Amino acid sequence: MTLHTGRHFLQIPGPTNVPDEVLRALSAPTLDHRGPEFAALTRRLLAALGPVFGTSGPVVVLPSSGTGAWEAALVNTLSPGDRVLFFETGHFAALWTAMAERLGLDVEIVPGDWRHGADPEALAARLADDGAAGGGHAIKAVCAVHNETSTGVTSRVPELRAALDATGHPALLLVDTISSLGSIDYRHDAWGVDVTVAGSQKGLMLPPGLGFNAVSEKALAASRTAALPRSYWDWAPILEANRQGAFPYTPATNLLYGLDVALRMLADEGLPAVFARHARHARATRAAVRAWGLEVLCADEREHSGSLTAVLMPPGHDADKVREVILERFDMSLGAGLGRLAGRVFRVGHLGHFNDLTLAGTLAGVQMGLQLAGVPIAAGGLEAALAVLREEGGNA
Amino acid sequence: MTLHTGRHFLQIPGPTNVPDEVLRALSAPTLDHRGPEFAALTRRLLAALGPVFGTSGPVVVLPSSGTGAWEAALVNTLSPGDRVLFFETGHFAALWTAMAERLGLDVEIVPGDWRHGADPEALAARLADDGAAGGGHAIKAVCAVHNETSTGVTSRVPELRAALDATGHPALLLVDTISSLGSIDYRHDAWGVDVTVAGSQKGLMLPPGLGFNAVSEKALAASRTAALPRSYWDWAPILEANRQGAFPYTPATNLLYGLDVALRMLADEGLPAVFARHARHARATRAAVRAWGLEVLCADEREHSGSLTAVLMPPGHDADKVREVILERFDMSLGAGLGRLAGRVFRVGHLGHFNDLTLAGTLAGVQMGLQLAGVPIAAGGLEAALAVLREEGGNA
Amino acid sequence: MTLHTGRHFLQIPGPTNVPDEVLRALSAPTLDHRGPEFAALTRRLLAALGPVFGTSGPVVVLPSSGTGAWEAALVNTLSPGDRVLFFETGHFAALWTAMAERLGLDVEIVPGDWRHGADPEALAARLADDGAAGGGHAIKAVCAVHNETSTGVTSRVPELRAALDATGHPALLLVDTISSLGSIDYRHDAWGVDVTVAGSQKGLMLPPGLGFNAVSEKALAASRTAALPRSYWDWAPILEANRQGAFPYTPATNLLYGLDVALRMLADEGLPAVFARHARHARATRAAVRAWGLEVLCADEREHSGSLTAVLMPPGHDADKVREVILERFDMSLGAGLGRLAGRVFRVGHLGHFNDLTLAGTLAGVQMGLQLAGVPIAAGGLEAALAVLREEGGNA
Amino acid sequence: MTLHTGRHFLQIPGPTNVPDEVLRALSAPTLDHRGPEFAALTRRLLAALGPVFGTSGPVVVLPSSGTGAWEAALVNTLSPGDRVLFFETGHFAALWTAMAERLGLDVEIVPGDWRHGADPEALAARLADDGAAGGGHAIKAVCAVHNETSTGVTSRVPELRAALDATGHPALLLVDTISSLGSIDYRHDAWGVDVTVAGSQKGLMLPPGLGFNAVSEKALAASRTAALPRSYWDWAPILEANRQGAFPYTPATNLLYGLDVALRMLADEGLPAVFARHARHARATRAAVRAWGLEVLCADEREHSGSLTAVLMPPGHDADKVREVILERFDMSLGAGLGRLAGRVFRVGHLGHFNDLTLAGTLAGVQMGLQLAGVPIAAGGLEAALAVLREEGGNA
Repeated sequence: MTLHTGRHFLQIPGPTNVPDEVLRALSAPTLDHRGPEFAALTRRLLAALGPVFGTSGPVVVLPSSGTGAWEAALVNTLSPGDRVLFFETGHFAALWTAMAERLGLDVEIVPGDWRHGADPEALAARLADDGAAGGGHAIKAVCAVHNETSTGVTSRVPELRAALDATGHPALLLVDTISSLGSIDYRHDAWGVDVTVAGSQKGLMLPPGLGFNAVSEKALAASRTAALPRSYWDWAPILEANRQGAFPYTPATNLLYGLDVALRMLADEGLPAVFARHARHARATRAAVRAWGLEVLCADEREHSGSLTAVLMPPGHDADKVREVILERFDMSLGAGLGRLAGRVFRVGHLGHFNDLTLAGTLAGVQMGLQLAGVPIAAGGLEAALAVLREEGGNA
Repeated sequence: MTLHTGRHFLQIPGPTNVPDEVLRALSAPTLDHRGPEFAALTRRLLAALGPVFGTSGPVVVLPSSGTGAWEAALVNTLSPGDRVLFFETGHFAALWTAMAERLGLDVEIVPGDWRHGADPEALAARLADDGAAGGGHAIKAVCAVHNETSTGVTSRVPELRAALDATGHPALLLVDTISSLGSIDYRHDAWGVDVTVAGSQKGLMLPPGLGFNAVSEKALAASRTAALPRSYWDWAPILEANRQGAFPYTPATNLLYGLDVALRMLADEGLPAVFARHARHARATRAAVRAWGLEVLCADEREHSGSLTAVLMPPGHDADKVREVILERFDMSLGAGLGRLAGRVFRVGHLGHFNDLTLAGTLAGVQMGLQLAGVPIAAGGLEAALAVLREEGGNA
Repeated sequence: MTLHTGRHFLQIPGPTNVPDEVLRALSAPTLDHRGPEFAALTRRLLAALGPVFGTSGPVVVLPSSGTGAWEAALVNTLSPGDRVLFFETGHFAALWTAMAERLGLDVEIVPGDWRHGADPEALAARLADDGAAGGGHAIKAVCAVHNETSTGVTSRVPELRAALDATGHPALLLVDTISSLGSIDYRHDAWGVDVTVAGSQKGLMLPPGLGFNAVSEKALAASRTAALPRSYWDWAPILEANRQGAFPYTPATNLLYGLDVALRMLADEGLPAVFARHARHARATRAAVRAWGLEVLCADEREHSGSLTAVLMPPGHDADKVREVILERFDMSLGAGLGRLAGRVFRVGHLGHFNDLTLAGTLAGVQMGLQLAGVPIAAGGLEAALAVLREEGGNA
Repeated sequence: MTLHTGRHFLQIPGPTNVPDEVLRALSAPTLDHRGPEFAALTRRLLAALGPVFGTSGPVVVLPSSGTGAWEAALVNTLSPGDRVLFFETGHFAALWTAMAERLGLDVEIVPGDWRHGADPEALAARLADDGAAGGGHAIKAVCAVHNETSTGVTSRVPELRAALDATGHPALLLVDTISSLGSIDYRHDAWGVDVTVAGSQKGLMLPPGLGFNAVSEKALAASRTAALPRSYWDWAPILEANRQGAFPYTPATNLLYGLDVALRMLADEGLPAVFARHARHARATRAAVRAWGLEVLCADEREHSGSLTAVLMPPGHDADKVREVILERFDMSLGAGLGRLAGRVFRVGHLGHFNDLTLAGTLAGVQMGLQLAGVPIAAGGLEAALAVLREEGGNA
């Protein structure tokens, strides 16, 4: 057994930071998922989810990981061989792309360097090529990751939407918000997204185990003809059962208890305050990184993530070694570099139920870990972060 | 809000009866699913699951409902258009059958009356027809439900296996144990099952949210060529990650904490004692039903379920009315009649973390509810059940 | 470790039956007992406690067992050598009497047989003797137990008050409601009680650890001159600190979290409904006992307890043997006979968070235990109880 | 309701820092406090408590706050009018002194400045005066606070013992370890203490609600003749009941569940490691305070507390204003200056379940709060603390 002499600092970019009140809610007794008490809970949850996604349309709740919600988005809207456009923005974008390939879709990738978000200009160019004259609208869906968890880079979704609109292209817009929903400003309806993919274990402040799809009218229409085989992920029976406050399978009741509390907490704080809190913590983190003389992976000021920061190691230093020192000495978990970034970055999660002093403790641990691992850093990183925390904002 | 003046009696045949200790375990803080502490948990869980399924082979744990585990069993082993044999044994068998159709399989159904389990003789006859001379082994899988949750009837799996063996038929044997595993004797390896499907919310004494596939060597071999599209459900990356104590997606960590406790509790009691306890409670329940002058749905003495009992209503009486009276007056949930049995049966769950006095309270509630709903019953039902409880067994 | 295969039936007359929601509240993180958040909690609790005691005066909350609240009642109102009148009504009355002796009071006992409550006529006679002409009001306090937990007999407090009033005697009236408050109708102000003693672990549906004193103006006045040494129990600093939402010591914060939930639950159900529920369960229990041909200890129909029932064993049978059989075979705890009743009675608690089916299970266990222990009982006890439950009341 | 956007920093010097695992244990169902399962728990607890107090003698567990354990120590060992020597070392020493006066003892106070512990030399001198020739051993007990929670100053108990031994004085030695037990090295037997007073809510990592007395043979002997009236606090019936694994009253069962877990956690870490961790955190805190140019209240290097640090404000600055800013801006509770120190100091608790990064977050909050409140401090305080954390120790 691991010995913890105090609370573990879980500063991976999710799962993380579940409020005690949510954790306690998980341990309420199971109940009859076909009875009136559960129906009332379901209706309350479905009503409260919409504002978090920024939609007045339906939100489908799935007993799955976030990857299940990826699959649901694809199989409900597409048919075998459909062309789908992905952006090479990071490890999770690559995993979603690989999933599409395994499901029999015709995947096309807009190249990228993992330091920028999805490129709206490249998208516009590609869509123009795929116009009536050229490709005949072969592209059926554009899939983007709003906040790439492996890089700490966001994509500017409204600009992606604008590219679709400018070219009059009918492709669906599918967006992964697994590590941004409830942390970074996001608006399903206003931004014209067709399917928003989310998971429970990040900004929604829950343990993993629930996936979500917010669904536009256009996506619903597409689902009626989409021919990829589907059963578990099929929206139709879920939406039908939801009308009675039920599900067509046994839902993950106890995670839903937690969701009930978490949604109330988000509403109590107010989404604008939630987003401002995360943005401020991200600024403080970047201030520390830069004062240490290190580089933030995200290369575009417009695209910094509010929920995590990926830090590039100086040449010759192994990020995993730093993480190991920090775990052993300071009982803090940080995110590893994934895929092509393995060993080259570590990722600091600063999302969910999180406040200034926990961030201060986190950055203190990072600073000490870098020093102990022999990474050359300048003095003053933590102080630079505190300057941001001290000068701005209220109780956060 | 529903007012509960005491503990709700959740006597549906699942979800039900999660031990307090398991519920508390759910509220432990989330942890790094890629770190060493979680890896140790994963290894402990995977080692402890095998004995519960009666297998020395791998058990795949999925973040899903039980229906997800159905889907996983099919898409990992079969190809589009494959012929699959199902038995018409009840509502959940029908749902699984419908899922297979939606996934593009060629479904064949052995007819049944929902009062008997899968018929081994009918299976043997059908397999003989499908022999080398006849169908050329067109049937790729035989799918049976070990304990049909809608009827309280079990299928004699060893006899199904014997039918396959006697005809030398190479079809895979897929068995749903969602409402039997951890309640009714079951042996994946000894009975020659290829995929065992299970869920967390019944005999495993957990909330819903986890699905399971125990997988034979033959099923693993089939998965290498099976061509149904799959990604989320794919066993291969899971089994590979499991070797490092990890998962290829973010697992439902907090449900796994509960599983850890539940598996220890099953081991502490001992599976034979667990099965004997359930069987004894089922006998007591049937004694009550018969003394009331009512009929148990299950029509074959060899096939009574140990985990639930479905009770047939006398003509002219609505089972749902009885359930409603019982819920309102006695704060007890019973299972409804499903599908073609709607209104004609109610189902009493007596599984999971459950003991004699809770059964006595349950049957007292059923008896009073029948009386209050005006269903004519003979006196002495509850006393007949107590006679069973009094005369047999130990502390159960 | 004790193996529980289902939920233990804790049918002692307290501690018992803590609602899951209250138990979960206990595990909220501790907080600053001098900060604003705790002050708000304290004020909410103190406001909600009054109605439960039936008082508009102060209620003192003590980090103690119920016996501590006994001691607080005595040391705040009396001086060394003061004469105090007790009634010989049961084991706990005897313990409180012995406490008074140890604290240096001059104890006088009105004899009793442990099958009746405090005798108002005997009290009136004794007070008359102690009048101005006779004893010169030597008696400074009359101490009665509202619901004697060892016997299941209540005392008619309003008639005790009437005896004081009729004789114009100035003695204080101190009443123990440890096992009646929140279960049996009780009214501190309306009944003219000076100190009401209570504990957390019975009708208040909490674990043990909190004691209570509701205090009349007259008792407060007495406390200003009472000369028994006191510090921990002293009301004055507590009442003063309470005005700021604080306590003069570190209060048992987490039990107070539970109290907050429990008081809300009592208010949601409504005290009259709470009392009616307990009374109905007590009637059903007595119906069972009598149908078995056994005798209820309480000998006066006006004095039956709503929260527990003590059952007399037939000659030659040992109540503890029955309890042992029931614990081993059915995992149910019953109350032992205490003091002079050891081995002669067992006590069934039916209080707190408790409903019809749990009572049915409880009485089924008692019935089976009596049979297994070889105690001759008539048939039909459980059915007699169910007849009460079936015919009366709503969802209780 | 207070809005917490992350975990509250509860850095008062108790209650504080209850491990999640302990909090969850509190919510286990109540059980029969006279049954075999509870008896096993009691025996396990009593066996595990001895090593924490450093005694092979009995430890009495009381359902009370720490002030109750003070009272128990006095009333079990002393008689009305007995002379008792106290040291003027801080607010809690003064409260204990006042309690002794209220209980009718003849209190004598060794003067002090609240910046030093109990003075062994002054004690030796006073005891010599009270020798056979002089006072005739009028002093019956010497009462010292091991770790004064209001000042962060410890008393050197072995030197107090030595003063008693050197003068051959028979007075009992009573020591308050409420905020040191389980945090700072302490040895009841080895240091010749007669009664050690403790509470649950500090180093024992529990919520408040339990008091403790470790009792020497000499104290037990004194209790047989001590004449202060006592009932609730009386050791004799508790020790007698404890022999059967029981208590003479209904114990605070759910806090005992938590104690069971907390004692196991202390044993898992090992007391020497626990003490070293606290001492290291105290050194880091003092390094910060001094680098800020502020003064630690404790004036003797030998007497610094391991569990809290009291910080003196520069003239003209109000400590409560700093605390208010820190609570509002950073959701952290610090301890107020008490009694004569009100407004002049704030106290930082760094005890219990606590680790390096939580300390770093704590000190970051203190530093920012001082700056925001306009208190002139030098730069580098937090960095000085991190230097201590970085250079020393292991995973703490």
